[in-house]
Amino acid sequence: MGSCHGSSSTRRVYRASRGLHLEFRRRRAALALRGVSANTEGVKVELINTGSELLLGQVLNTHQQWLGRRLTDLGYTIAHQVAVPDTAGEIELAVKEALARADLVITTGGLGPTSDDLTRERIAHLLGKKLHEDAVLIRHIQGFFACHNQSLPAHVRGQALVPEGAIVLPNPNGTAPGLALRLSPRPRHPARWLIMLPGPPRELCPLFNRSVVPFLQRELPLDENFVCRTLRTVGLGESHVAERLEPRLHALIAQGLELGYCAHIGAVDVRLAGKGEDANARVCSAAAVVRDELRTHIFTEADETLEAVLVRLLTERRQTLALAESCTGGGLAHRLTNVPGASAVLLASLVTYANAAKQKFLGVRATSLHTHGAVSEVVAREMAAGARRATGADHALSVTGIAGPGGGSAAKPVGTVFIGLDSAQENSVQRRFNPFDRETFKQATIMQALEILRRKILQLD
Amino acid sequence: MGSCHGSSSTRRVYRASRGLHLEFRRRRAALALRGVSANTEGVKVELINTGSELLLGQVLNTHQQWLGRRLTDLGYTIAHQVAVPDTAGEIELAVKEALARADLVITTGGLGPTSDDLTRERIAHLLGKKLHEDAVLIRHIQGFFACHNQSLPAHVRGQALVPEGAIVLPNPNGTAPGLALRLSPRPRHPARWLIMLPGPPRELCPLFNRSVVPFLQRELPLDENFVCRTLRTVGLGESHVAERLEPRLHALIAQGLELGYCAHIGAVDVRLAGKGEDANARVCSAAAVVRDELRTHIFTEADETLEAVLVRLLTERRQTLALAESCTGGGLAHRLTNVPGASAVLLASLVTYANAAKQKFLGVRATSLHTHGAVSEVVAREMAAGARRATGADHALSVTGIAGPGGGSAAKPVGTVFIGLDSAQENSVQRRFNPFDRETFKQATIMQALEILRRKILQLD
Repeated sequence: MGSCHGSSSTRRVYRASRGLHLEFRRRRAALALRGVSANTEGVKVELINTGSELLLGQVLNTHQQWLGRRLTDLGYTIAHQVAVPDTAGEIELAVKEALARADLVITTGGLGPTSDDLTRERIAHLLGKKLHEDAVLIRHIQGFFACHNQSLPAHVRGQALVPEGAIVLPNPNGTAPGLALRLSPRPRHPARWLIMLPGPPRELCPLFNRSVVPFLQRELPLDENFVCRTLRTVGLGESHVAERLEPRLHALIAQGLELGYCAHIGAVDVRLAGKGEDANARVCSAAAVVRDELRTHIFTEADETLEAVLVRLLTERRQTLALAESCTGGGLAHRLTNVPGASAVLLASLVTYANAAKQKFLGVRATSLHTHGAVSEVVAREMAAGARRATGADHALSVTGIAGPGGGSAAKPVGTVFIGLDSAQENSVQRRFNPFDRETFKQATIMQALEILRRKILQLD
Repeated sequence: MGSCHGSSSTRRVYRASRGLHLEFRRRRAALALRGVSANTEGVKVELINTGSELLLGQVLNTHQQWLGRRLTDLGYTIAHQVAVPDTAGEIELAVKEALARADLVITTGGLGPTSDDLTRERIAHLLGKKLHEDAVLIRHIQGFFACHNQSLPAHVRGQALVPEGAIVLPNPNGTAPGLALRLSPRPRHPARWLIMLPGPPRELCPLFNRSVVPFLQRELPLDENFVCRTLRTVGLGESHVAERLEPRLHALIAQGLELGYCAHIGAVDVRLAGKGEDANARVCSAAAVVRDELRTHIFTEADETLEAVLVRLLTERRQTLALAESCTGGGLAHRLTNVPGASAVLLASLVTYANAAKQKFLGVRATSLHTHGAVSEVVAREMAAGARRATGADHALSVTGIAGPGGGSAAKPVGTVFIGLDSAQENSVQRRFNPFDRETFKQATIMQALEILRRKILQLD
């Protein structure tokens, strides 16, 4: 359920300079940093998501998050987002309002071939621009259908219509291209653009990365140099990370460093950004501080998950892994096997929900189960040892706990979990307490187990 | 990753009467049904999501989908949604604009205790209402902190501030209540309300269900009776579902039935709704048609997942299940164990990525692996039989396939999967082709395996 849990994330962004997102959650006063509340500098971006399905709640608006993060990391920020239904009036009104305020308006959706795909037509109408059929696009669409062994339906040709003066942003994964329209700039602003992007995420995301990013850097350059770096940490709470970093980054924040956090289940991303000529030096200095302070809790400085890091570490060492899962119910294996190449390192996961299965596949002793219970240090130890013995893996992780909602006791309340690790020189068990709802419990436990293994492989602690 | 994949969902809504969401994707012309493009009737609802984190892309806006779906199922529809940063000016402007258009404005977020939680204060300012401390709320907040063995921080008292005239909607899961403010109605509308809801989903969702739903039904009743029913299907594509249903529902659509689809990976929800005195009869007639046409593909008419249905069916029959997973990598067990009570039916999942593990834990023969390959009908059959034999379960499901991106061949391209089922009177294997990205492949395969088991348990086909 990974990214879904974004909804429970929290965040804080610290910035001493002017900025839209100046936020000092909980301890703003203590830091005594202040800023103005509206961003009057830079490129003002607004996002319009078209689609009645968004308002009916039939789909999740992943574009808002994806574009928000991509643009933020590039130094742009969405100042306003709106979702409107697929009706001519609503689309035109939203575009008109956004163009009155923004230097860049991005629309998503409504470029397809059906009669409720109105974005292209309504924007052309609003701006008084004629649509003409683009010969290159017609050939692209014909090629696309030929490639899929399909004949070209007549209504699909509408996707080759381009408003006069628009720049076509090619869509390698679909038939509807992105379209960029240059508009007369607002007073005191160098340029104003409207970019239409197709709705399907599999089309929008690569098109944005391939065509829109260089387009923005060329046509709407930031007025200042912008640098951004994210260090991903595991095993520390957000407030703990903040407490450790802020005193040491205070001076850099005063010089304009932006420090932000994004908390996930079991992990906190530390985002460092800066503008201006010194931005790189400032961000590098800050990153050095973060590394010095959080050290081994940083699992990556790249855009990769903790499970991807583990698959990489094991692959590099030609080591193998076995899992013995009870309360995570296969979730640990599922996360690892989402990583391409996991088959090179993961031999097996024995998801032993029933006690009999723990005995049969992992060799857990009946007396251990009887004396200590299935959720116990002893059983976690035997599960890990059994998984490694049965598979011959270099490492084995085991997890046994009480996910709830039922099954807790005073001594072992819901949320109690034991995580075992068995390797050549180690057989250890850690007890953790994750008193959350069932799915959050699983995800928190999975992160803890992955982190225990990472620390073992890298011989940390 | 269940609900995350909402992003790749598609939808169609058919309605002959007036309606905001009139959509006739792909075959509107064929159906020759038409309607007006703007909803001028009923209660106009707008949603304002406050939070800079939404615009920075740090969290996914799950409120939009959740509230959209809940309101739609109650007969209300969000006509407009906007996300604004946590700044006083942006919040006031968004609320002012929405109040000029809507009968009901719902805000989310910004009710917490920190200095960027501005919603309550800015709305009171905008509407010229004083804030007063509510004694009942103070006691609730004190009780909440006492219950968590924490002393009451001074700034938390701000959450007990209530704009004059506001109705407090209690929040059992947090300290910030919901607040409802009655405003002078727009011309020709009976009432106008503004409702502020807290941001954390764990607080917002139960508060909405417990307090806002009865509040709406009392204070902003629909001008017409509204009936909505969703039938969830598995194993048919969206266009296939549409082709089968539409000719038979044509007459009811002409009478005002709303027919909509929501496509998930491997499943399509069919939503039937209607307004007016005859709505119930119309929706019941339509549901009878859907049942008659789609029959055993309907896995529930309740709000439950396919895996929840399976846990229920197995529990009712006191039957047990074992899994043998290769390419789904634990994802099948993970989905099933997300259902509370899964431990009563799932004995074990043997996630045998390595061939040696398939042999050791499932008794797959070396010659089968050698002759047919790990991704083969023979191996799927032996995996299922082995899992049932090893666990003594009533049923065993096996999955072996090529998730990609690597590992495909001409005879068995990426996306090929074999799903085996072993029960007392059955040992069968089905070959499927799911040529998608790795995670979509896993989810599609999981749905197919669950459906094969459901059909076996209910003795369908």
